[in-house]
Amino acid sequence: MPSSRPFAKWIEENQDKLVDRLAESVAIPSVSGDASYRPEVHRMGGWLADTLTGLGVSVKSVPLGKQNLDGQEIDLPPVLLGEYGSDPKKKTILVYGHYDVQPALKSDGWNTEPFSLSEDKETGRFYGRGSSDDKGPILGWLNVIEAHTKTNTEMPVNLKMVFEGMEESGSDGLEELVVAESKKFLSNVDAVCISDNYWLGTTSPCITYGLRGLAYFQVSISGPGADLHSGVFGGMVHEPMTDLFAVFSKLVTPSGEILVPGIADKVAPLTAEEKARYEVIDITVADFESAAGGKVTLSDDKATTLMGRMRYPSLSIHGVEGAFSAAGAKTVIPASVRGKFSIRLVPDLTPQDVNELVTKYLNDEFAKLGSKNTFKVEMLSGGMPWVASIDHWNYKAGTKATETVYSKTPDFTREGGSIPITLTFADALGKSVMLLPMGRGDDGAHSINEKLDRSNFIQGSILLGEYLTEVANFAE
Amino acid sequence: MPSSRPFAKWIEENQDKLVDRLAESVAIPSVSGDASYRPEVHRMGGWLADTLTGLGVSVKSVPLGKQNLDGQEIDLPPVLLGEYGSDPKKKTILVYGHYDVQPALKSDGWNTEPFSLSEDKETGRFYGRGSSDDKGPILGWLNVIEAHTKTNTEMPVNLKMVFEGMEESGSDGLEELVVAESKKFLSNVDAVCISDNYWLGTTSPCITYGLRGLAYFQVSISGPGADLHSGVFGGMVHEPMTDLFAVFSKLVTPSGEILVPGIADKVAPLTAEEKARYEVIDITVADFESAAGGKVTLSDDKATTLMGRMRYPSLSIHGVEGAFSAAGAKTVIPASVRGKFSIRLVPDLTPQDVNELVTKYLNDEFAKLGSKNTFKVEMLSGGMPWVASIDHWNYKAGTKATETVYSKTPDFTREGGSIPITLTFADALGKSVMLLPMGRGDDGAHSINEKLDRSNFIQGSILLGEYLTEVANFAE
Ligand SMILES: [Zn+2]
Ligand SMILES: [Zn+2]
Ligand SMILES: [Zn+2]
Ligand SMILES: [Zn+2]
Repeated sequence: MPSSRPFAKWIEENQDKLVDRLAESVAIPSVSGDASYRPEVHRMGGWLADTLTGLGVSVKSVPLGKQNLDGQEIDLPPVLLGEYGSDPKKKTILVYGHYDVQPALKSDGWNTEPFSLSEDKETGRFYGRGSSDDKGPILGWLNVIEAHTKTNTEMPVNLKMVFEGMEESGSDGLEELVVAESKKFLSNVDAVCISDNYWLGTTSPCITYGLRGLAYFQVSISGPGADLHSGVFGGMVHEPMTDLFAVFSKLVTPSGEILVPGIADKVAPLTAEEKARYEVIDITVADFESAAGGKVTLSDDKATTLMGRMRYPSLSIHGVEGAFSAAGAKTVIPASVRGKFSIRLVPDLTPQDVNELVTKYLNDEFAKLGSKNTFKVEMLSGGMPWVASIDHWNYKAGTKATETVYSKTPDFTREGGSIPITLTFADALGKSVMLLPMGRGDDGAHSINEKLDRSNFIQGSILLGEYLTEVANFAE
Repeated sequence: MPSSRPFAKWIEENQDKLVDRLAESVAIPSVSGDASYRPEVHRMGGWLADTLTGLGVSVKSVPLGKQNLDGQEIDLPPVLLGEYGSDPKKKTILVYGHYDVQPALKSDGWNTEPFSLSEDKETGRFYGRGSSDDKGPILGWLNVIEAHTKTNTEMPVNLKMVFEGMEESGSDGLEELVVAESKKFLSNVDAVCISDNYWLGTTSPCITYGLRGLAYFQVSISGPGADLHSGVFGGMVHEPMTDLFAVFSKLVTPSGEILVPGIADKVAPLTAEEKARYEVIDITVADFESAAGGKVTLSDDKATTLMGRMRYPSLSIHGVEGAFSAAGAKTVIPASVRGKFSIRLVPDLTPQDVNELVTKYLNDEFAKLGSKNTFKVEMLSGGMPWVASIDHWNYKAGTKATETVYSKTPDFTREGGSIPITLTFADALGKSVMLLPMGRGDDGAHSINEKLDRSNFIQGSILLGEYLTEVANFAE
């Protein structure tokens, strides 16, 4: 049964006012990836700081210096550090969100103006850029604070807030700030809650406790001094593209099995309890086919499909740089090509391990070819996987809150991709981090027609309040 | 010993005047591939027609209609049909050349103005766009006519000429014209001589009697409805790139062996006589390494290397369309990719044969993968290989002429690429076609600093005259 607490009732009854605030925030086109929009990102930061201050939050706006974008040197948007309550008897929860958004133009194919929140009364959906990613969730926290104030309910925890304006553009400067503040502003944080992802599907709430890491590789093969004509040189020289195809065909089978020796051995074994967790997740293989836009899943079994995404490594070949890549027919022998692939990591695979295994294996495979070309393997970037314990009180609180608001146990999910800030908080603070989403899997965060369902905004705000309330109950 | 005929002596003695004419022609920037230069191509056609007429050649300028280039509808340059002599007792030789050139800008890296012929006195080289490709050779024929006239020597053959202005841009309309004229203007041609290629190296003259054909393939693999994020979908779906690498790794080994069954069987067997022809060619493997810009030849044996280029098929993978091809690291699963490769053909491989063999083989290989993606093989273009008999009197005349002028037997070479007009003449006229180059292998026809050596222009002109003289001796 839904929450009957006074703050929840206030949110239900005042929802139109809360939606107006969401509309106000969506109306500021705070696109961080385009220099010409940068003043709007700063305006959004100012609007958010003022709104927080108006609710009694003490806010510090931390400048992050300058960046070079589109050939201009411009100011990075500030990080807002908010503090609400400092009762030493209460737990302190750090919440994170970002007030910048993805680019959006009506002409991209939006049905409505992207920077004007518009409601479809029939479906109860609010369309607008940032509605779900991530202005709705940020305002969820504000709704909880306001509801407690208006109903004279004491906040169950102390809140610390980190709201950044560069998430969609690489979170420039954030990691350094978090590390620097970990022994200062963030030193007394007991747990972290991030609301910046989505339900897996459209009907069941979830809590996310894991993310895959990444090891991104570039393999460079070169030989001739310049691109050659295949009429003149075909049949005379070792061709880098032939070598690349020979080597990359040894990376992964068409059914997804990674062929690099040693990788499978390092994957933490699957427990029965863990397997059961995937079997109950409310999703079907057909849902994934529909998300992929084709009947191309590797397995017809739901749990296997879910684990392929969430708890096993995967290897994808992304492309080739330096070869012919346009339409048509060009008879070139590319002189120097760079093949790109990446491996998604899960415990206990570290980028360092994988780099060693991949480099040795590919060098050995190349040596077998007997080619006179030169060969180089590099790891361009590496990020650790992350998995949290769902037995921590932070997760117990999130679970209980979800059961209260949605009358069902949340799906416990892991994301296949990475959300770097999660790892930053987990590493810098050494505390439990939980991802507690507000929106649904079909919100279209980075697509046209991004939306947030009214029920997700309202019940999602109540969920955040319930979570804070349960923290006070579960915390040890 | 060099030619002592009067026409040859006249060419030697009047070479500065002939060089002036070459300079005049190079000064007209007849770039066919750029709409803004099109008036210059027409001007060049006019200049050539006037010059021919001045030498007593009767010239017909045939318009070829319009084309669309760079968004403009413009007139195609005319083909000049020239006729010099019509004595029924003499053989009639058709000569071909093109008066258009590749683009060239000083800023591309030229040491001199590309459209101003400039001589390096020390090396005796004339630098300028079109000097070697193909204005020098065209003027070679004119030099021969003028020298005969000035020395009151009777021309040993009747000449027919086809000079086009679109060779560097696909020879639009030429094939249709040749076919149409094959029973009219070109009906009494006895043999064809094309001077539009190069010596293999820089020291020995050659005669070219073969060209490889081409079968160009595109393999399309698609599955997902749109590009996917490898974090979200990696490990869940069949990836088109994985399938492409698996299939293309079955095309050719890194040592150049084509793996498509049936192709090797159709290659005409090598005779001892033919092999000997490669062994005496004046070139070294080091020359090829230097041409390729790297020590990457498949073989360290000269004849094997030459045959790899000239008389065996080869398979080159050119690139992938639809995948990530830029610098950097993008974590995309491309939804739909098109891999491109081509096979160079030699007798008795036809594009039709190869298309059947490749299509069946690749479909079989794809079926083995067990992928749910869709797969399509297409041959985008096909061109037949061409090999002429060097026992024909046309070649005997060319050989004898070369021996006279250069005091050595020419290298008999085949080109690895295609020169489509060769096939057009061979097929439409059913006569012997010979490629008799004027310039050297380092002329840089399509590069910066294109050049023609003074000795190649002068001795090359004499070579063409000697050839015509020998035709009268050898022709049956
Ligand atoms: Zn976000
Ligand atoms: Zn986002
Ligand atoms: Zn040419
Ligand atoms: Zn050319």
